[in-house]
Amino acid sequence: MKQKVLLTGFEPFGGEKVNPSWEAVKQLHGEENDEIRLVAEQIPTVFKQSIETLETLLQRHNPDIVICVGQAGGRTDITPERIAINIDDARIPDNLGNQPIDEPISDHGPAAYWTSLPIKRMVKEMKEAGVPASVSQTAGTFVCNHIFYGLMDYLGRTSSNVRGGFIHIPFIPEQTADKEAPSLSLDMIVKAIRIAAVTAARHESDIRTVGGATH
Amino acid sequence: MKQKVLLTGFEPFGGEKVNPSWEAVKQLHGEENDEIRLVAEQIPTVFKQSIETLETLLQRHNPDIVICVGQAGGRTDITPERIAINIDDARIPDNLGNQPIDEPISDHGPAAYWTSLPIKRMVKEMKEAGVPASVSQTAGTFVCNHIFYGLMDYLGRTSSNVRGGFIHIPFIPEQTADKEAPSLSLDMIVKAIRIAAVTAARHESDIRTVGGATH
Amino acid sequence: MKQKVLLTGFEPFGGEKVNPSWEAVKQLHGEENDEIRLVAEQIPTVFKQSIETLETLLQRHNPDIVICVGQAGGRTDITPERIAINIDDARIPDNLGNQPIDEPISDHGPAAYWTSLPIKRMVKEMKEAGVPASVSQTAGTFVCNHIFYGLMDYLGRTSSNVRGGFIHIPFIPEQTADKEAPSLSLDMIVKAIRIAAVTAARHESDIRTVGGATH
Amino acid sequence: MKQKVLLTGFEPFGGEKVNPSWEAVKQLHGEENDEIRLVAEQIPTVFKQSIETLETLLQRHNPDIVICVGQAGGRTDITPERIAINIDDARIPDNLGNQPIDEPISDHGPAAYWTSLPIKRMVKEMKEAGVPASVSQTAGTFVCNHIFYGLMDYLGRTSSNVRGGFIHIPFIPEQTADKEAPSLSLDMIVKAIRIAAVTAARHESDIRTVGGATH
Repeated sequence: MKQKVLLTGFEPFGGEKVNPSWEAVKQLHGEENDEIRLVAEQIPTVFKQSIETLETLLQRHNPDIVICVGQAGGRTDITPERIAINIDDARIPDNLGNQPIDEPISDHGPAAYWTSLPIKRMVKEMKEAGVPASVSQTAGTFVCNHIFYGLMDYLGRTSSNVRGGFIHIPFIPEQTADKEAPSLSLDMIVKAIRIAAVTAARHESDIRTVGGATH
Repeated sequence: MKQKVLLTGFEPFGGEKVNPSWEAVKQLHGEENDEIRLVAEQIPTVFKQSIETLETLLQRHNPDIVICVGQAGGRTDITPERIAINIDDARIPDNLGNQPIDEPISDHGPAAYWTSLPIKRMVKEMKEAGVPASVSQTAGTFVCNHIFYGLMDYLGRTSSNVRGGFIHIPFIPEQTADKEAPSLSLDMIVKAIRIAAVTAARHESDIRTVGGATH
Repeated sequence: MKQKVLLTGFEPFGGEKVNPSWEAVKQLHGEENDEIRLVAEQIPTVFKQSIETLETLLQRHNPDIVICVGQAGGRTDITPERIAINIDDARIPDNLGNQPIDEPISDHGPAAYWTSLPIKRMVKEMKEAGVPASVSQTAGTFVCNHIFYGLMDYLGRTSSNVRGGFIHIPFIPEQTADKEAPSLSLDMIVKAIRIAAVTAARHESDIRTVGGATH
Repeated sequence: MKQKVLLTGFEPFGGEKVNPSWEAVKQLHGEENDEIRLVAEQIPTVFKQSIETLETLLQRHNPDIVICVGQAGGRTDITPERIAINIDDARIPDNLGNQPIDEPISDHGPAAYWTSLPIKRMVKEMKEAGVPASVSQTAGTFVCNHIFYGLMDYLGRTSSNVRGGFIHIPFIPEQTADKEAPSLSLDMIVKAIRIAAVTAARHESDIRTVGGATH
């Protein structure tokens, strides 16, 4: 049965002119085949407001699967995230100037939520397609982790069958002209997110392969 | 009131000849002043057995504070850990050849536990003493995270007032002779752990300062 | 006037199964348009023998421009090299087991040779095409620097009008499956080398743009 | 016979409040034993003016050995430099706002000069003393490389028996409070420079040990 996959990308932040997460998912908007139908939306890079926007989108689109995507400048590969933690601790202000320090995202929520996406399968499929990828053990404590936690908390509170998670992506080359930072081409990022969507649509359970970190 | 602080370090692992965590804490063993009394013990770098050893040590020493220390080769500074997660996912075998993949540490435990140490105070004090330090958002998924989770789980299960947490430390220079990796001198690491112990003894609550990560 | 560009790539070395330099240049072999004709050849990753092979190829193909390409695992972008230095100092053995330490490449040659390719134009053109690129100030002291020095020395000794230089490239994704290292797709590397060839064919002189390093 | 060693450090630059090179060498000023007498001087972080200052100091102090020291923020260890190249290419303005791009340091000088210090011995001695160290193949293209080239050029032009070279050092911890960058303690840097001076005084020739780079 065809599954509707909601993809979200963020507004640019931290002085960048583009956010590769939005540049990538907007290219996938409207793609459809026998397995998936992709819908892409942009989310403000703002604490709280990002979660409110996401909840509205969940109600509007009623997706089967949700994949939020965000920029992780400095990483070398595509990194599906394993876990969201219940804390906001902003190193820089968000796009409305909020800078929460050590505040819980949900006052009564658990310390952390696991992704419900098959992240190791995704990594395996991405690598087999020539896209560098690995599991990440931390989504940070900024708006990316915030929306990831907010997503999993909402899905839990609403006893939803919807599965969801978060993927961090590197800079794209146009962002690294003046920095010494790794990057991946936008084409490759688009390809990776398409693979993530298809993999999530095909498989509810994950595989057991090495994907941890010694620290 | 003088507080007893149990410090633990690990056996060498991953082909290293020493583990700077044990080299450092053993130097602090027996230190005592009006505020603290330090006891150092070594823990095997082995899943499950490390937690059993720790529980035995907790019962034997009956400490007020527990600071487990471990090596994070490749990091540039002293990193008190914020959170332990309920998963073992070993990239390499432990010292007995175990390599669990995506297995929970505790079948019925929560997804994660927060440290109960004042990690931002510790970082502040370390920096003021000239020691590079920052909060870490992930302790990985190997034996370091394993014992950190096991510690917090035990303290929770036993309704203990004991406070505890985990600190990752970089390589020491003698380990990086043949690698291009950052290191800190053993003296500086010893100094950092002493600061951590004193800070934990003086302060139950933490301060609010920036210490997050954008990803 | 159409210019013949000789491209060279190396054999795999250091335990790798492929060398992206050869994978890339062999795809370009035979390409031809009004400006350039590309010829690609493989060079052994062996001290001395690599230079002998290159000299034979120079005599056989009689190119107008020579671009030697080599793998720089760990770099994040395409890096045209500025300078070749007169020293072999091998961190690992070459593919025949030679490991020279602090030996001059040419007993009577100068300490260093500058590239005669317009490397800053190349970097500019690559970036404008979306390929991450920057000037490098060191080609190392292994076979890559060796052949670069050998090339420039030969061109100097033979009072040749041929222009030449060296470009280092990152790993490709299939090489980084089990390492945490940056990579670029083979497509992007191929594109970058094509741009380098066209840029060298069009421009003898370079532009003045920032491309240095503070250290 | 006791040798006089001139040590130079730079003014802070690039927005830093201190320059660890000056902080370190000034601590060594006046040290004396049977082998060495150390004199430390500060050099402006300014193209041309730095070389003029150095030449004046060479005439005033008439040293046997000169070791210029400079900050290489981001490096993990002490790095004696192998080679100085005849180019200024400033990524940032110097302390007087000069930003030369691809200008030769000496119009008639060679492309590069080798250090005349026993850099591999220095690295060996530093490591044996617990200080992380390695040979560097590039001093960059900013004022550090500039003064290194200027030093070697002056010693060559004046047919001097004076031996000299350059050592790059990492940040000190107080500089990395707000950056994720490696650092070494000032004590360790001071120790390293003392070792460099003693080693240079004892040995004119170098040893043959691995110290190269694959790229």
